[in-house]
Amino acid sequence: MTGVVVQNIDRVDQDIIDGLAACGVSTVHEAQGRKGLLADYMRPIFPNARIAGSAVTILAPPADNWMIHVAIEQLREGDIMVLGTISPSNAGYFGDLLATSAMARGCRGLIIDAGVRDVRDLTEMNFPVWSKAVFAQGTIKETLGSVNVPVICADELINAGDVIVADDDGVCVVRHAEAAEVLEKARARETNEATKRARFAAGELGLDMYDMRGRLAAKGLKYV
Amino acid sequence: MTGVVVQNIDRVDQDIIDGLAACGVSTVHEAQGRKGLLADYMRPIFPNARIAGSAVTILAPPADNWMIHVAIEQLREGDIMVLGTISPSNAGYFGDLLATSAMARGCRGLIIDAGVRDVRDLTEMNFPVWSKAVFAQGTIKETLGSVNVPVICADELINAGDVIVADDDGVCVVRHAEAAEVLEKARARETNEATKRARFAAGELGLDMYDMRGRLAAKGLKYV
Amino acid sequence: MTGVVVQNIDRVDQDIIDGLAACGVSTVHEAQGRKGLLADYMRPIFPNARIAGSAVTILAPPADNWMIHVAIEQLREGDIMVLGTISPSNAGYFGDLLATSAMARGCRGLIIDAGVRDVRDLTEMNFPVWSKAVFAQGTIKETLGSVNVPVICADELINAGDVIVADDDGVCVVRHAEAAEVLEKARARETNEATKRARFAAGELGLDMYDMRGRLAAKGLKYV
Amino acid sequence: MTGVVVQNIDRVDQDIIDGLAACGVSTVHEAQGRKGLLADYMRPIFPNARIAGSAVTILAPPADNWMIHVAIEQLREGDIMVLGTISPSNAGYFGDLLATSAMARGCRGLIIDAGVRDVRDLTEMNFPVWSKAVFAQGTIKETLGSVNVPVICADELINAGDVIVADDDGVCVVRHAEAAEVLEKARARETNEATKRARFAAGELGLDMYDMRGRLAAKGLKYV
Amino acid sequence: MTGVVVQNIDRVDQDIIDGLAACGVSTVHEAQGRKGLLADYMRPIFPNARIAGSAVTILAPPADNWMIHVAIEQLREGDIMVLGTISPSNAGYFGDLLATSAMARGCRGLIIDAGVRDVRDLTEMNFPVWSKAVFAQGTIKETLGSVNVPVICADELINAGDVIVADDDGVCVVRHAEAAEVLEKARARETNEATKRARFAAGELGLDMYDMRGRLAAKGLKYV
Amino acid sequence: MTGVVVQNIDRVDQDIIDGLAACGVSTVHEAQGRKGLLADYMRPIFPNARIAGSAVTILAPPADNWMIHVAIEQLREGDIMVLGTISPSNAGYFGDLLATSAMARGCRGLIIDAGVRDVRDLTEMNFPVWSKAVFAQGTIKETLGSVNVPVICADELINAGDVIVADDDGVCVVRHAEAAEVLEKARARETNEATKRARFAAGELGLDMYDMRGRLAAKGLKYV
Repeated sequence: MTGVVVQNIDRVDQDIIDGLAACGVSTVHEAQGRKGLLADYMRPIFPNARIAGSAVTILAPPADNWMIHVAIEQLREGDIMVLGTISPSNAGYFGDLLATSAMARGCRGLIIDAGVRDVRDLTEMNFPVWSKAVFAQGTIKETLGSVNVPVICADELINAGDVIVADDDGVCVVRHAEAAEVLEKARARETNEATKRARFAAGELGLDMYDMRGRLAAKGLKYV
Repeated sequence: MTGVVVQNIDRVDQDIIDGLAACGVSTVHEAQGRKGLLADYMRPIFPNARIAGSAVTILAPPADNWMIHVAIEQLREGDIMVLGTISPSNAGYFGDLLATSAMARGCRGLIIDAGVRDVRDLTEMNFPVWSKAVFAQGTIKETLGSVNVPVICADELINAGDVIVADDDGVCVVRHAEAAEVLEKARARETNEATKRARFAAGELGLDMYDMRGRLAAKGLKYV
Repeated sequence: MTGVVVQNIDRVDQDIIDGLAACGVSTVHEAQGRKGLLADYMRPIFPNARIAGSAVTILAPPADNWMIHVAIEQLREGDIMVLGTISPSNAGYFGDLLATSAMARGCRGLIIDAGVRDVRDLTEMNFPVWSKAVFAQGTIKETLGSVNVPVICADELINAGDVIVADDDGVCVVRHAEAAEVLEKARARETNEATKRARFAAGELGLDMYDMRGRLAAKGLKYV
Repeated sequence: MTGVVVQNIDRVDQDIIDGLAACGVSTVHEAQGRKGLLADYMRPIFPNARIAGSAVTILAPPADNWMIHVAIEQLREGDIMVLGTISPSNAGYFGDLLATSAMARGCRGLIIDAGVRDVRDLTEMNFPVWSKAVFAQGTIKETLGSVNVPVICADELINAGDVIVADDDGVCVVRHAEAAEVLEKARARETNEATKRARFAAGELGLDMYDMRGRLAAKGLKYV
Repeated sequence: MTGVVVQNIDRVDQDIIDGLAACGVSTVHEAQGRKGLLADYMRPIFPNARIAGSAVTILAPPADNWMIHVAIEQLREGDIMVLGTISPSNAGYFGDLLATSAMARGCRGLIIDAGVRDVRDLTEMNFPVWSKAVFAQGTIKETLGSVNVPVICADELINAGDVIVADDDGVCVVRHAEAAEVLEKARARETNEATKRARFAAGELGLDMYDMRGRLAAKGLKYV
Repeated sequence: MTGVVVQNIDRVDQDIIDGLAACGVSTVHEAQGRKGLLADYMRPIFPNARIAGSAVTILAPPADNWMIHVAIEQLREGDIMVLGTISPSNAGYFGDLLATSAMARGCRGLIIDAGVRDVRDLTEMNFPVWSKAVFAQGTIKETLGSVNVPVICADELINAGDVIVADDDGVCVVRHAEAAEVLEKARARETNEATKRARFAAGELGLDMYDMRGRLAAKGLKYV
């Protein structure tokens, strides 16, 4: 579906989104049943960023960043742009000028299944990007794509309005309809993990904490 | 062409080189018509380095770093070594001892389509390297290559005396004969970008700044 | 060999291990005749870590981290866990909870031919990991592997009790029986390199220091 | 969405499917506006197969082929199995026994974003497979996935009942609702191409046939 | 361990080896508990070869094929050469001349974790090779390696005298001491599979044949 | 250098070109001192093709095949098209229609550092292609490149009028000025190899034929 801009997207409540950001990618991924991760080649351009936001999706032709300009108009405070390509490309679709424009509209970051450039400037601006490549290769503005249609980004389907969580571990998508429930489970998981962490720090073994010894023996594990 | 050392190479004026360094890879790449980028697998061993210099080129056999010793004698203040291999190799051709020797001759950095090691030492010495790999694998000194002949490095042709610009975005080559003109265009581009950046920061959209709405509509973009 | 836990492994004297850590990967690799390096895709999750320790080896099924729990019980002060998989996997086998448990038993780090997650927490805990991937993908606990059997990790054979050295240059294994001799050679190499470094810094060329000019000419090198 | 088997899926009329098979991947891809291709790493295990069929989708855990057994029961004459994984895996999910079972139910082939084995037997049976890898690695049957839910396979979203077209050029998906229209366009394209082919064979140039010379000159192309 | 040629290696009885060849890689891999596979990047240079033989191992420096000449003298009727490199290389270590020499000594094929060339000649000679690459790049003869020491080849440890099985599915190693038992299990497996194949061909489902329905329901599988 | 078509290129005598084709890639590569190979990811779309011809070079933007139409007009009997991209792309630049047009002008094949499609038709037409990918992805005709300027194709520099040799081993370039001399050396090499082949077939060892035993012993090789 190219040549379409969907203007009204349904966003999740900002408190839920911020709660998911605080939990982080690994916890959210586990809390929703180990699904939703983007491919592991998506790496942050600088460490220690941890964000969440509503996805404004961009379907872009290879080496053509025209649709990013179109998408920026659709951004609201707290959004994250998610760009998938029609055909694979590592070109540098995005740099400091577009980041300035996106930040002026409240954008929290970019998830791009392609390349990014001006990474030093983006780092100084504290505009986080998760990308497949860092590459200065310039792009053209010749062919239409779409904005806010479902896109495949790094092996995962992203719908406009889904919640994106991203940190040093990578990127995870939470479906719009499941965000509240996932947050609840993620927080429960965090509480539970804090307890376990204390027990592990005190020297207790997972073998005992999770009562694994019997099942391991039943499977045939031999100590020699 | 192996077994040859070209001793006299024509270098670009140092002021032009330093001007290109200040502009950075993405701007220089755009200013010269979107050409000259090395492949995106060339990554810096530490962030925030931004250099330019005259290329002293090295054609090296796989896993054999003998020619780097030969090349170092040809270095002058402000040069950058650029190493391409006769056949692909990730071996660690270069480490802190060679960097000490190169720095003693004024070398500003290394661009190597192979591996590098001692990266912690190189970071402490502030000797920047862009490489295909970090790998401790030792090399031998058995087979001749050449110095200051044209080499292919990371998918790009580099001639001795071409200007190399390298930063966090990667590596770009500017042809010797075009360096002055490229600098002029790059500076014009920077001035232009400063203006745009201010307008973007104030909230103006690229759609309006670049007058894109008509052309997008003509291509058939639909807002729904 | 799956379903086996070898409980008693022979460790190298801790002073030798600590000496090897101080020398670092590239020096140790050279000192033992340029062998023992793991593949260059093994990268540290944060810079500037330099460790050595006795290998506690883990053979794990794909996307199944059960054996890590079993291995942690076998850890002693100064050990490093080394995980190879039965079939390739990038899943996130290890995170902050397991690191807490491993640190409580004196573990110095993890070498994993698979994925790791919670890298921000691991960085804050200063628990170093060298891995093939950073990936939040959760794992299961269904299938047995083994602990302290020989494993292939990143193209290299690792036996329990071998010494692992890891730093920014990657990871190197030193055989248990050779550790003392390798340390001696590594230290000799370091002394030798200190002298060379001073001579290089003073401007002496490798061509002269290593007396290469005659052999280069004999091979046919031409200066033009 | 794991643990679900959707039993009733809506299939496209078999004549339309067979028509799409006759057109082949490249023509169908162009006819539907250059969309729908799976990633180019999906390669056939033997040459000269050209098939189309209704997608029966399988979402499978890494290295676990349990869901293929579940899916086979859902197959009808003319279907193609499409397997995506919850987390990447190259394991050999499928071999000659499963192919025998699938063929007994009329299955025309398999598209698998993972590994396949027994490729010599599959070739002799003339059961075509497009896969990411050929790998004998065995799989387990421990964890649920789903059947006939939407899956991501090789960077593309596949819904149960979508039409899959596959040949030596790769794999393309046609949405269920668009199949009839795409076939019409693909056939028109074929007719058109037959005419062009004859003109090309007679020596006419694309520059003239497509009237490109004026636009090339306008863009600034210079003949020297 | 370089610079060593082990002359006397213990070979498995030829009947056992030939029996393993007849079973093929996937069956042998399963029969020995799903172990022993080399990495899936090892591909045959032509289809339909299926061989087994005793491993004569070669540890070779990068881009240096000297040790192959040394190894050929150690070959006996029915052997397979297995080459691992000290450091990764795709160079073309082996071509039609070496194949002629190896065939003159009864060699059945080559498993090489590097490159091969003259593949058209090798195909005409019916000398099968499984390799990481096809690459014409020439090699040198400068540095020692070893023959018949344990080598890592494509992520797997191979000892001289181990049995290598290779076919279109890839390459598998069977330990010398386990060959007879593995053959027995592989043959049992084949018999068992013949029965299953007939039942599958007759339309029986794996769900019923393996009695999976109860366990799937217990895990929570829902039909909708 | 984009937007330029060089019309007059100097071609090597056809007898020399045909002679090089008969020698094949590996022999030619060796005969010219082990240089000139394109990267090993360049694979033929069908086996057993062996061609040589004069390079008509194409510099093309990513996913834009306009320049191929321009290049076809420049083809003469016996030429080979060589396409390099301005920025990496796997798109399917070339299919059966363009092949029909190129064949009508006497073109012998295509070397393309990008993707190709309609490979079944190309195989039936016996039009050989060496490519980086097989991918049906369509391309556009929007941006200029150049024809018959020097291009980088698969890590190697190709000038218009250089001789391209391609077969199952890959692709090799012979410089225009060196073609006659390389042919002479290649033929000498072939004669020499025929003699060696006979000796190898008779059971003589390379160790003896090349008199290697002394040098191996001098390097320290030990037989145990």
